[in-house]
Amino acid sequence: MIAHTPNPPYYAVIFTSVRTEGDHGYAEVSDQMDQLAAQQPGYLGVETARNELGINVSYWKDLESIKKWKENIDHTHARNRGRSEWYESFKVRIAKVERDYGFNR
Amino acid sequence: MIAHTPNPPYYAVIFTSVRTEGDHGYAEVSDQMDQLAAQQPGYLGVETARNELGINVSYWKDLESIKKWKENIDHTHARNRGRSEWYESFKVRIAKVERDYGFNR
Repeated sequence: MIAHTPNPPYYAVIFTSVRTEGDHGYAEVSDQMDQLAAQQPGYLGVETARNELGINVSYWKDLESIKKWKENIDHTHARNRGRSEWYESFKVRIAKVERDYGFNR
Repeated sequence: MIAHTPNPPYYAVIFTSVRTEGDHGYAEVSDQMDQLAAQQPGYLGVETARNELGINVSYWKDLESIKKWKENIDHTHARNRGRSEWYESFKVRIAKVERDYGFNR
């Protein structure tokens, strides 16, 4: 649920999206990509939620890890389907986490 | 929906949370805080989604704007209720957005 990330600094990729109507294979490939991302060097975790808006925040050790994941061939293929089939609109933000704190009951 | 943020750099506050059972006044105060945040100097926008996990990403001009909003008295009161009533657990991450790009159909 809430990702167990190490002490900052580390990186966040904030992916915010609005889906097109219908599934078009999205759910299956989305699960595959979550599993594949988790196997990449430098992956630290992911948090995701969707209502009308979907937010997926993945955490990474450094910019190099993010770049390598972006260049992964299966991920590139999935991203292309994202633009052609799955997303009405999206925004990607690459951010350096400088500070964090949490709370547990 | 997707926040219209300016060109980077700017800041993101990634607030990830798991709610307690029941509302306990959460929905009303949450709306009030969204409206109050939007009136603060340096506020750039917000994106939010919730399933089992809730993700709220607010965007800010700089760290000073984030600090001022954290010190706002109504916001401080709401945050105290968050710890005592509304959240099972949460994590706050302060991150500097270094790069962004988007897509619209």
